[in-house]
Amino acid sequence: MKSQIIGYHTTQFGELWEKSLFDLVEETIVGVLKNTNLEIGQVDALFFGNMLGGILENNLHAGAKIADIFGINTPIYRVEGACASGGLAINLVHEYVQSGKGKTVLVVGAEKMTDVQPEFITQGLMSAASGEEQESGITFPGLYALMARVYLDKFKYDRKNLAAVAVKNHAHGLLNPTAHFRKVITIEQALKSSTIAAPLGLLDCSPVSDGAASLIITSDPALIKKKGGVQILSSHVATDSISLLQRDSLIEIKATQIAAEKAFSEAQIKRSDISLAEVHDCFTIAELFAMEDIGFWKKGEAGKRALNYETLKDNNGPLIVNTSGGLKASGHPVGATGIKQVGELYLQLIGKAEKRQIKNIKYGLAHNVGGSGGTAVVTIVGI
Amino acid sequence: MKSQIIGYHTTQFGELWEKSLFDLVEETIVGVLKNTNLEIGQVDALFFGNMLGGILENNLHAGAKIADIFGINTPIYRVEGACASGGLAINLVHEYVQSGKGKTVLVVGAEKMTDVQPEFITQGLMSAASGEEQESGITFPGLYALMARVYLDKFKYDRKNLAAVAVKNHAHGLLNPTAHFRKVITIEQALKSSTIAAPLGLLDCSPVSDGAASLIITSDPALIKKKGGVQILSSHVATDSISLLQRDSLIEIKATQIAAEKAFSEAQIKRSDISLAEVHDCFTIAELFAMEDIGFWKKGEAGKRALNYETLKDNNGPLIVNTSGGLKASGHPVGATGIKQVGELYLQLIGKAEKRQIKNIKYGLAHNVGGSGGTAVVTIVGI
Repeated sequence: MKSQIIGYHTTQFGELWEKSLFDLVEETIVGVLKNTNLEIGQVDALFFGNMLGGILENNLHAGAKIADIFGINTPIYRVEGACASGGLAINLVHEYVQSGKGKTVLVVGAEKMTDVQPEFITQGLMSAASGEEQESGITFPGLYALMARVYLDKFKYDRKNLAAVAVKNHAHGLLNPTAHFRKVITIEQALKSSTIAAPLGLLDCSPVSDGAASLIITSDPALIKKKGGVQILSSHVATDSISLLQRDSLIEIKATQIAAEKAFSEAQIKRSDISLAEVHDCFTIAELFAMEDIGFWKKGEAGKRALNYETLKDNNGPLIVNTSGGLKASGHPVGATGIKQVGELYLQLIGKAEKRQIKNIKYGLAHNVGGSGGTAVVTIVGI
Repeated sequence: MKSQIIGYHTTQFGELWEKSLFDLVEETIVGVLKNTNLEIGQVDALFFGNMLGGILENNLHAGAKIADIFGINTPIYRVEGACASGGLAINLVHEYVQSGKGKTVLVVGAEKMTDVQPEFITQGLMSAASGEEQESGITFPGLYALMARVYLDKFKYDRKNLAAVAVKNHAHGLLNPTAHFRKVITIEQALKSSTIAAPLGLLDCSPVSDGAASLIITSDPALIKKKGGVQILSSHVATDSISLLQRDSLIEIKATQIAAEKAFSEAQIKRSDISLAEVHDCFTIAELFAMEDIGFWKKGEAGKRALNYETLKDNNGPLIVNTSGGLKASGHPVGATGIKQVGELYLQLIGKAEKRQIKNIKYGLAHNVGGSGGTAVVTIVGI
């Protein structure tokens, strides 16, 4: 029995200073149970994707904290793989519900990032990089900027080819009521934004956000029959060297290539069957890499195609990318991101994506990355 | 197909100042592959149990760091549930290998605790407790001391009934070459040790240790036929309120009771079939609770039976407890503890426990707890 998604909920993403990590977790669990008309007692296990609870607020052992909120004794597992924590949790749940024991599982991702000074967030996020990279003082914008420089040089692109990704994703974010930023930006604004790590400007970078999202995934035939939903056709994880220094190439993310190849092979569909991809655009360059490494486009083509806005919803192309607004506009509460990506596919596939709704969609793909590419998760869903 | 353990390795446990977290991880992975005569490429996935890497050394995203060491692209998942991280990882692997995708999985637990000042370790460990408990300034010895006071008062015991647990586990630790402490202690020494949180003295407390341990678990029939090994008959997780304030009783760990009940029910064996239990004796009182809550003994009996040394190996009783030395003498490198417990059962069941070897053992039980009882994992293995 394949696993089926039967419900989704997301909180608002943004700077939610009045809400704690577990306020957000509670809100999304209550929300997804309401959306599916299920009781918490019908859930056999709960998986929780979170990266920074320990570092930013000395908050571990989330299983017992969630058990406390709901007065339950359910098995609860926290999964961490940096910014891929949410995707990893979904991948594990997909396996878990097929193992025979836990048939109906709640998967929650959450992150609370904005309650501390920015330098602590930057330092905390760098826990996902190698010791040498941490010691060198480089940060994630710097690591992605190094990769962006090589890419732009090699294929004779410039900052416009990056900025176009942000312009598109902000256009989509405007249509998403739970997005962190609901504001259209122009390519001129993007190019003029302050330099963070050349060639990346402020508007090439996803924000630091608070938020939580959740899905209910089941392999229970009775529940699937009753609730319908969206099937997880495949989900694969790959890892790679943590450090850029150890990589064969600075313009491809090998973990993405491996996970995507396995995911398409198991799902038995073609790249061209995908109508919507939610890809990991932590920086604009990352969306270009994703499009090439997943195999939608050839290496080097993404810069040009981005500038043609081929994946903008309004252009009605065969493949739309990041209708949620992506990490760039929807926001990037780290542990929640991978859950929101699959949640956006779910909403689109059941026809409930409102102003963001794509027509005639049968298959969607989610792509979640940890660090500078040390972990990648690719999940394919369909109806 | 049930899952089968086909190999085990543990590093020395102790104050290993010359080794980093990932030195220990590498050492145990190399060790377990050598012990099973497998290559890293034959492993379909890797699960990593670790609690404090983020808080103590800003070290997350272990998946990519392990991939880097071995030059692999294997799926790697980090699992965290405080001191139950290792047990949770085994529980998940038990499910994962039965789901059909990953047939042969390496499960590693590790913790590097002794490189920082003790106050940081204490603060880091308190991340497993509730916010209110953290703010009150209480520590884990204090939380367990509160429970111990209620237990001793209710059943008219005194500190001797606790100290006897430490005396027994140190006697076992002497026989374990990888134990943190290999030193017999007398009950007089235990009673005279400095008070940490009354009624608990220093020798009622498990130490802060560095160490790593690993198992290879498979559902591959060919590999099982070739390598033999030990079957995982059942593994169950339960959670409970994080905070002592929210508990119905201070002298029972409900999560242990629930997980044990489910584990025995699935394994279809009786309590009296177990010849060896490795239970979570983070403090001496915790072993008394474990014996009662798992259902080996009635509530209130454990204090008396401990003082009779019924579970000491040399007494050749029907049930021996913590031949590894337990957390008390073997040491408690948090993420490694749950792996070492099941590893000790494995060694005993294949007859390779050397001086600690128990005769005629068919079934063993491992019991791993997070925090003050917010998470419990019970795993039953047999030949």
